[in-house]
Amino acid sequence: MPLLRQMILEFAEFEKLAVSITEERLVRDGFGERPRFRALILEWEGKPAGHALYFPFYSSFEGEGIFLEDLYVREAFRGKGIGKAVMAEMARIAVREGVWALCWEVLDWNEPAIDFYRHLGASFMEDRKAVRLDGDALQKMAESGLPSR
Amino acid sequence: MPLLRQMILEFAEFEKLAVSITEERLVRDGFGERPRFRALILEWEGKPAGHALYFPFYSSFEGEGIFLEDLYVREAFRGKGIGKAVMAEMARIAVREGVWALCWEVLDWNEPAIDFYRHLGASFMEDRKAVRLDGDALQKMAESGLPSR
Repeated sequence: MPLLRQMILEFAEFEKLAVSITEERLVRDGFGERPRFRALILEWEGKPAGHALYFPFYSSFEGEGIFLEDLYVREAFRGKGIGKAVMAEMARIAVREGVWALCWEVLDWNEPAIDFYRHLGASFMEDRKAVRLDGDALQKMAESGLPSR
Repeated sequence: MPLLRQMILEFAEFEKLAVSITEERLVRDGFGERPRFRALILEWEGKPAGHALYFPFYSSFEGEGIFLEDLYVREAFRGKGIGKAVMAEMARIAVREGVWALCWEVLDWNEPAIDFYRHLGASFMEDRKAVRLDGDALQKMAESGLPSR
C-alpha cells in the first residue's frame, strides 16, 4: 500500500489535482470488510511501473459495469505497450465478470491519452457533464430545509 | 421493483437512451448478497413521483463518495420542489456516511437540470470527458494479445 499510495501521489501531480488520501484509508478501503476498490500493480522487469485502480458502478439502464478510476504508467516506463496491456487486462476482467461496460474519464488536455483511448475503439460520451457537490456546498445542501409538504 | 423499473423506463425515454435492464436483475442487484445500488422512491400525496438511484464510488485521491446515477421526477410532479428535497436528502446521506462528495452526470442539452444543479452550488468538471468500452470493442480488447514481454 505504501507503493500504491506513492504512485497515486505521482499520478495526482501529473494530473495537477489535490490528494487527501492516507495509507491507513487505502488499507481500510481496499482490504477492509467491504472493499471499495481493487487495484493492479504494474511491473516491468520486476520494477513497479504504475497502477490501475477500479470499482463496480451501476447503470439503471444497463446494469453492472466496471469503472477504471486510475490508469497510471510511470514516465520511465511509457512507450512499452504497458498501458495497452492493462486495458486488455481490464477488458478481460470486465468480460469474465459479465459486466456490460468498462468506463472511465480522461482530462480534456491529455491529448496523448485521448488518442490512445480512441485507438482502442473507446466511445467518448461528449454530451455528458460531470457534476459534483462537496465541501461547504455539500454541507449547506445537507442542512437545507425539506419542502413544505 | 416493478414500479422502480417503470420509472427507469420513463427516465430513459426522457433521456433518449436505450435500456436493457430487467426486473429480475434489478431485484438481484439491489437486494442480493452484494447489493450494487440503493434507491429512493419519491412520493407526493402518496403517489409515486419519481426515483433516485445511487451507489458508492471511490476516488484514489479523496476516498469514498456517493454517485447519484438517476434523479427522476415524473412530469406531473415537477415544479413542486421534489428535486431539491431529494438533493438535500442525498446530501444528508453523504454527510451522514462521511463521504467526501456527491457526484453525478447531466446531459449537456438538459438546460433546466444544469440550471437547477448550478443553483444548488454544484461544480461542473468541464475538463473531463466520459469514456466507455462496451459491446464488440470491449470483446475485441479482451481478446487482444499481451505485449511481447
